[in-house]
Amino acid sequence: MKSKKPSRRKFLTAGAAVAGAAAGALKPASAEAQGAPAAASAAGAAVGKKDIKELIAYGERSRFVTSLREPAEGRPSPDAFGLTFHVVTPLGESVGSITPSSLHYVAAHRGFYVPEIDPKEHRLMIHGMVDRPLIFTVDEIKRFPSVTRVHFLECIGNRSNARRQTVAQTHGMTSCSEWTGVLLSTLLKECGVQKDASWIVSEGAEEVKGASSVPLGKAMDDCLVAWGQNGEPVRPQQGFPLRLIVPGFEGIYQTKYLRRVKVVDRYYMTYNDYGHLQKDPKVIALTSQIGPKSVITFPGGGHQLNGPGYYEISGLAWSGGGAVKRVDVSTDGGKTWKVAELRTPTYRMAHTRFALPWTWDGKEVDIMSRCTDDLGTVQPTRAQVAKYWGEPLTPQFNVKGADNTIQMWRIKADGSVINANFV
Amino acid sequence: MKSKKPSRRKFLTAGAAVAGAAAGALKPASAEAQGAPAAASAAGAAVGKKDIKELIAYGERSRFVTSLREPAEGRPSPDAFGLTFHVVTPLGESVGSITPSSLHYVAAHRGFYVPEIDPKEHRLMIHGMVDRPLIFTVDEIKRFPSVTRVHFLECIGNRSNARRQTVAQTHGMTSCSEWTGVLLSTLLKECGVQKDASWIVSEGAEEVKGASSVPLGKAMDDCLVAWGQNGEPVRPQQGFPLRLIVPGFEGIYQTKYLRRVKVVDRYYMTYNDYGHLQKDPKVIALTSQIGPKSVITFPGGGHQLNGPGYYEISGLAWSGGGAVKRVDVSTDGGKTWKVAELRTPTYRMAHTRFALPWTWDGKEVDIMSRCTDDLGTVQPTRAQVAKYWGEPLTPQFNVKGADNTIQMWRIKADGSVINANFV
Repeated sequence: MKSKKPSRRKFLTAGAAVAGAAAGALKPASAEAQGAPAAASAAGAAVGKKDIKELIAYGERSRFVTSLREPAEGRPSPDAFGLTFHVVTPLGESVGSITPSSLHYVAAHRGFYVPEIDPKEHRLMIHGMVDRPLIFTVDEIKRFPSVTRVHFLECIGNRSNARRQTVAQTHGMTSCSEWTGVLLSTLLKECGVQKDASWIVSEGAEEVKGASSVPLGKAMDDCLVAWGQNGEPVRPQQGFPLRLIVPGFEGIYQTKYLRRVKVVDRYYMTYNDYGHLQKDPKVIALTSQIGPKSVITFPGGGHQLNGPGYYEISGLAWSGGGAVKRVDVSTDGGKTWKVAELRTPTYRMAHTRFALPWTWDGKEVDIMSRCTDDLGTVQPTRAQVAKYWGEPLTPQFNVKGADNTIQMWRIKADGSVINANFV
Repeated sequence: MKSKKPSRRKFLTAGAAVAGAAAGALKPASAEAQGAPAAASAAGAAVGKKDIKELIAYGERSRFVTSLREPAEGRPSPDAFGLTFHVVTPLGESVGSITPSSLHYVAAHRGFYVPEIDPKEHRLMIHGMVDRPLIFTVDEIKRFPSVTRVHFLECIGNRSNARRQTVAQTHGMTSCSEWTGVLLSTLLKECGVQKDASWIVSEGAEEVKGASSVPLGKAMDDCLVAWGQNGEPVRPQQGFPLRLIVPGFEGIYQTKYLRRVKVVDRYYMTYNDYGHLQKDPKVIALTSQIGPKSVITFPGGGHQLNGPGYYEISGLAWSGGGAVKRVDVSTDGGKTWKVAELRTPTYRMAHTRFALPWTWDGKEVDIMSRCTDDLGTVQPTRAQVAKYWGEPLTPQFNVKGADNTIQMWRIKADGSVINANFV
């Protein structure tokens, strides 16, 4: 995670810009004479209200930290039927590469209420075209050789449109965790997959039984039956006690509350198939993977810059096709591009933090980022996608399937930031 | 984070052992006939009690997940003076490499109550032997180029002794987070460090002002002024809004609520100096760094194995001197060693998860792990350290300074696991 060390000169220049922008806020202090800075007074105020046993047992965030998830725009959560539920990660306040589990996005089409599963009662059954159909307890699953891998999950509903203005609203249905579990291939080999099998159907334990069909090749490659998330058991809203992770595929494949995997020899239509899922394994491989994608999370839609000067442009990049290879950033509306620094490791199918130092001259400007993954695939513009489909590029143009197009943010002269894809 | 793929044969063997150990629990199911497995009934029970807005805003863990921190054994928390406070991470239930922020260990000698700091009021002053003494707001700190790095913190009180029996009690005062912040060197260069400076003194904003002296060489190398932890702002118990991270050095250097850094030309004795801190920069460099260390977190003290059969031995390794190079595990009391698989990346000064497949024959046995870091330094045994100090190796022998000796766990024939360093 070591970033290149910029030169002393660069920092001094950047620093001067900061001092300028802060308009005197960074005032030199005659430190010895002044003694303690302003924080001293605030520091005296202790919490002291909380029960000491609670403080000892399980820490909490500061009451001054108020980042919260919110319902995804345009999707009442829950909907009138109580089935659909979408809340987005406050990506405009994101830090590093890991999403705090409490702020992980949630998308559910399988009933709003999170099932309260006693892990002692939960079972995972693997059956169908296998030599030895088996039922596993959660404890048994945990005894198998485990792997720990960082992966993003993203809902296909994560798209930029004219109704969405903040980073959370355009891109908040992606989140990234350190997942721990057993490879699905380990369990499938334990059961003995039969020769003619070609698909699996995974099913969760919600009241409305959701299911997904996944090509056997993917199932035997890098899918995980995860029981751990960010150092603790998977959270209920993320599928406690077991979640199927299908790295790089769209969110709906990541079956929560996994209770059944059936090995089959054909594609099965399931409750999840709105018509955007395909039965051809090759089409699935090409369309279910999230393409190379990135977004500038600061400054982004909804932010307010406090005048011209130095800023660090920072964002996240990811790809369902592999690892992020590079990220380019444009600060002149797409005319020229600079290579951003990658600030966190480039794992396969994981969020990677990028950053670029930038001095804003105070004039209106459009900024954007572009991800290239290790397959060499480059994140497209909205114009390129519209051209591909032979449709005019209007603010109303809606990308078909997963939307991995370049997000433009417009920084206006007053420092406010808006969605420039639709202006 | 990709681990080597074991062969199919290995898994089948391992799997057979699991099936054997579970004594019929892994019974084949005539799946089609049986329909849904047992979890289905549990799944129907929905939460439904929680206010919907809370559920949307900030997720929680399952009520079936009960891992909690506890006071470190032998250290009342808080003590009679209300100053000392030690709670340990439940390391025996740890997953992957990241410690959930709510379960990060806490050690405080600077007053029990966590200061409730309004980040808008907090300031960091850098002064002393600098050309431009400056006072920074937290927002200004966040505008500098940031880095994101995974680092462990460890209290020097983290030691195995005869009073401590569980993994949490012997090793729970180490935790690992993804930290985001600005390099201290960036801020120091901004202020212009003067030629004869050789140390810094860092000070926190608690009621009892704690401070630490750090050699300037370390301060200019890899120290961080962290404002982010695991994807969100640093937690109050970890130093919100700013914490100084001194990678690899013992915990007491990692100044919470950082409000002041004074650049000086000599070592300053501070409130933190119990006599175990040294004023010679070379001695500090050698003694303040946590040596290569590791512990088997499963099976470990306090665990109960459910009979002979296959288990995955799993643990954590780390070093204050750099990255983990390899971990060896012995399952025969130290006679022979096998190289464990590293399951998470080997960052500098970060927890690394290791694992080794193992089949227990049901007989009493001592198991242990040994870390080698990329400096080539090898984690010592208690016997080696006793010999170095010319003291007899008795259960009462107490390692001087940081205790990075090899931890032996004894698995008794009844499956219970105890601390074998003192039996």
